[in-house]
Amino acid sequence: MTNPAVQPQGSQALIDDMSFLLARASALSNAAGNAALAEFGLKVRSYSVLELAAVGGRTSQREIAEFLRLDPSQVVVLVDKLQRAKLVDREPDQRDRRANVIVATALGRETLEKARTRVRAAADSLHGDLSASERATLTDLLRRTAFPS
Amino acid sequence: MTNPAVQPQGSQALIDDMSFLLARASALSNAAGNAALAEFGLKVRSYSVLELAAVGGRTSQREIAEFLRLDPSQVVVLVDKLQRAKLVDREPDQRDRRANVIVATALGRETLEKARTRVRAAADSLHGDLSASERATLTDLLRRTAFPS
Repeated sequence: MTNPAVQPQGSQALIDDMSFLLARASALSNAAGNAALAEFGLKVRSYSVLELAAVGGRTSQREIAEFLRLDPSQVVVLVDKLQRAKLVDREPDQRDRRANVIVATALGRETLEKARTRVRAAADSLHGDLSASERATLTDLLRRTAFPS
Repeated sequence: MTNPAVQPQGSQALIDDMSFLLARASALSNAAGNAALAEFGLKVRSYSVLELAAVGGRTSQREIAEFLRLDPSQVVVLVDKLQRAKLVDREPDQRDRRANVIVATALGRETLEKARTRVRAAADSLHGDLSASERATLTDLLRRTAFPS
């Protein structure tokens, strides 16, 4: 994966810097995930939108943006693309007539099922240096960082 | 931080998905870091470039791009901005006459010293739910994810 020869010498400050480590781990994970999803015409972000559209919670674009920490305008573009691919539909939000909720189609759920297997395999390979228990610990600590109480 | 009321119901697949958790934790960390760095005219990415320029390893733009997992064209833009702010200089690379290395100026080092304190405080606050030992564990596990062997 990484060629140690091109690691700049002495960047210890960054190697100890949680925000740098998060950014670099996330970039690697994103690249691996995008590669795994290419055959479905998805990327990590559109896959995440599809997951949220599939949970049956009748999720609005605003809620998707907040959950994924994306700008609402980015979510509109992602939903447009998923809708053109017939993976999601927009339906009126019964809580707010000016808003829509995003709902996965049957094709969307079917695609998601297959895509999820590939995403998990890509993650397993990315975290191949960690034991199962270390991965569980990492997931728990990341969850508490990503969703602070 | 997060309003639990807007968390879509039933998105358990994402809550267990390491790539989603990495992306969301990284987005939160990036936002906190950018806010902390605003007074220096820096963002998390330009700060990271400045760290690499300051370590004295005579680092090329290509090495910076690989280390930060950015596109080389993004690094050029970041270095241009740091150079205009007189925080770094480009110097000829003695290993390769066609390339430059990026070296922090005295002002760059001074700025970095102050910025580092702010970035660390922002990270401490982001990881406020974790104990010191949990943070050390998270750093270790992220380091092994970000730099697979």
